[in-house]
Amino acid sequence: MATLVKKFGGSSVATPEKMHGIVDRILREKKPDDRIVLVVSAMGDSTDDLLALAAKVNPEMPKREMDMLLATGEQVSIALLASAFEAKGHPAISFTGAQAGIRTNDKHTKAAIQDVLSHRVDEALNEGKIVIVAGFQGVTDEGAITTLGRGGSDTTAVAVAAGLKADLCEIYTDVDGVYSADPRIVSNAQKMQEITFGEMLELARLGAGVMQPRAVEYGEHNNVAIHVRSTFNDVPGTIIRGEYTVQEKNFVIRGVAHDTNVAKIAVRGVPDHPGVAFTIFSALAEANIDVDMIVQSARVEDNKNDILFTVTKTELVDATAVIEDLKESMNFDKFEVEINVAKVSVVGAGMLGSPGIAAAMFGALAKANINIAVISTSEISISCLIPEKDVTNAVNAIHDYYFPNGKEE
Amino acid sequence: MATLVKKFGGSSVATPEKMHGIVDRILREKKPDDRIVLVVSAMGDSTDDLLALAAKVNPEMPKREMDMLLATGEQVSIALLASAFEAKGHPAISFTGAQAGIRTNDKHTKAAIQDVLSHRVDEALNEGKIVIVAGFQGVTDEGAITTLGRGGSDTTAVAVAAGLKADLCEIYTDVDGVYSADPRIVSNAQKMQEITFGEMLELARLGAGVMQPRAVEYGEHNNVAIHVRSTFNDVPGTIIRGEYTVQEKNFVIRGVAHDTNVAKIAVRGVPDHPGVAFTIFSALAEANIDVDMIVQSARVEDNKNDILFTVTKTELVDATAVIEDLKESMNFDKFEVEINVAKVSVVGAGMLGSPGIAAAMFGALAKANINIAVISTSEISISCLIPEKDVTNAVNAIHDYYFPNGKEE
Repeated sequence: MATLVKKFGGSSVATPEKMHGIVDRILREKKPDDRIVLVVSAMGDSTDDLLALAAKVNPEMPKREMDMLLATGEQVSIALLASAFEAKGHPAISFTGAQAGIRTNDKHTKAAIQDVLSHRVDEALNEGKIVIVAGFQGVTDEGAITTLGRGGSDTTAVAVAAGLKADLCEIYTDVDGVYSADPRIVSNAQKMQEITFGEMLELARLGAGVMQPRAVEYGEHNNVAIHVRSTFNDVPGTIIRGEYTVQEKNFVIRGVAHDTNVAKIAVRGVPDHPGVAFTIFSALAEANIDVDMIVQSARVEDNKNDILFTVTKTELVDATAVIEDLKESMNFDKFEVEINVAKVSVVGAGMLGSPGIAAAMFGALAKANINIAVISTSEISISCLIPEKDVTNAVNAIHDYYFPNGKEE
Repeated sequence: MATLVKKFGGSSVATPEKMHGIVDRILREKKPDDRIVLVVSAMGDSTDDLLALAAKVNPEMPKREMDMLLATGEQVSIALLASAFEAKGHPAISFTGAQAGIRTNDKHTKAAIQDVLSHRVDEALNEGKIVIVAGFQGVTDEGAITTLGRGGSDTTAVAVAAGLKADLCEIYTDVDGVYSADPRIVSNAQKMQEITFGEMLELARLGAGVMQPRAVEYGEHNNVAIHVRSTFNDVPGTIIRGEYTVQEKNFVIRGVAHDTNVAKIAVRGVPDHPGVAFTIFSALAEANIDVDMIVQSARVEDNKNDILFTVTKTELVDATAVIEDLKESMNFDKFEVEINVAKVSVVGAGMLGSPGIAAAMFGALAKANINIAVISTSEISISCLIPEKDVTNAVNAIHDYYFPNGKEE
């Protein structure tokens, strides 16, 4: 007997036909004793339709009411999907986030799950029902409906799996697993059988968009194995878990990530006295701007510093406003903005004990004649800022170096 | 300081523009100290849209899941309406039926309200907020979402008013009050200032469709005054309450109702022995068919009986099947069905102490040359079954007799 939690996104439940497709697949694959929970998102574009309606009534809808509104999207899909199972003769029951015991804090529109009270789901499973849970939503201790923000259904699925101590949480998606690089730009990218939570988080942070970082974190903290697999076929995908159970070819570098939503700001000629970096980055933090790579370099000729950092292109306008405001008080020479940049990164938990990883990466980029503007490292990753036009070449050059044998399957 | 509960139907919240119209009206009429609760239905045709979608997935959707689905309709409108108030700068908060404490039994799709736990609504009112409650829905003790059936938002409004001990429950509708007859067929029908719960219930039972009978019953049991008034203007409507507070012109007969959804079944030549009526009407009750008027008459010539009764046209096919099945065992001669019939009724709590009411009604019909097929009476009403083609003439003839002075306003 296995307890399995399976998450399907909005495109998988976009029409009655697609819902029946899910039902057929589940009933075909289900072993008689399996306890099955499905976590689903709102149908197709229905969330966007609700957002458009909300904007017509009030462009600045209160966040609590926004959650009240958006939560209806999943409530529609769970009721219909449960009905689709019953149409095929299998007992099923739907639960809203609140009914499934998804307790969150009260940060409306981006609430965090604090606890899962699984008894109602558990009881329904014990009655032989397939349980359909609304993703993306929860309830506060005061009974207010909350949503978890975009991609929150992944987190719901992992949290439900944790609450039930499920054997596996399966995330059905439009890619069939986690690859050593984006298969759209690296033709011989390898699908991984397994990857650790820490590596997956680092890949997600550095631009690989397969899984929501919060869902992976929730899996890590509760030790829930997550199987990322395709909606369109039965091929095994990638399992994210705490430790490897199989020996794969390459354990030092697990993947190459890239991110083009990056912009560089260079603050030139900052007088060299204590606290200047603090002044800049605390001002950016106050404006709620995430800073990624940071490099400070001393200029020999005039005893001043250059401070370079990156932000997302999305937050560039806000960030430049903050720096502009600091110009007079800080008395720096000038600042420059560069938007035609991208970040390439290598990730691998094994790099800690493997010297030379960074050198090899820089070598691969040099051989491809690609200039590196900024370098930053974490315990399990190395990132380089390069010209945006070179990103495909760079990812391929690095990938060819670490994965010279092409696809493993 | 007054506590007012106001109910608006689906057509009143069909678009963002109409929602803003409600907001403007409420804020214009509201006195600073007023505590205002709005109960609203789903936007326009959205419930029908959900029903169409449900039928595509499964024509026989489980009732629990149907409630899960349909409840989203009101949840959308309450969130948007609260947002519309906030857009105009007035604090507002929305509550689902469950959050507003509407506790029901578990008869999904036609649940009955058992209790209202008003503390959350009360707290929000005390914080100066306008409270928007989802009509038509509630929650069971086990936490399942229920709906109250068509027209259930009226019942929600009265129940919320009862829970809050509100001063008045106002039902905004497309007619501007309760009339002495249907104004569409009686040109000088009079709008009543007041009517008692009992009279309103009897009128509703006999075909006057202004208010849901269950909502009126809830008002009667909890002594909540209900003001039926127009969505389109500020003219006072009709107040339904336990006792009259003003002296109106005519207290004996309050209204003339008519109903064309009536069919007559005559069972001829039933052998005269004990239990034959029980056999017929228990068989109909088992088939869940409502029987209205019943007349049994003995035939002198052969010592047999004729039993006549009426059902709705909607249930006629089912009813004839029941009677057909009884033919052999009961050994009656034959049965006849008549669908071109209608029922006209007079209603008035005062008729108890006023002899001659029935005679006057029969006189009015005779003068208009209208034949009466069946007569039935209750404590506060008299009904006659007549040919359907005569219904307009009949209602006008009776109305002219009891309300000779035309409109009172």
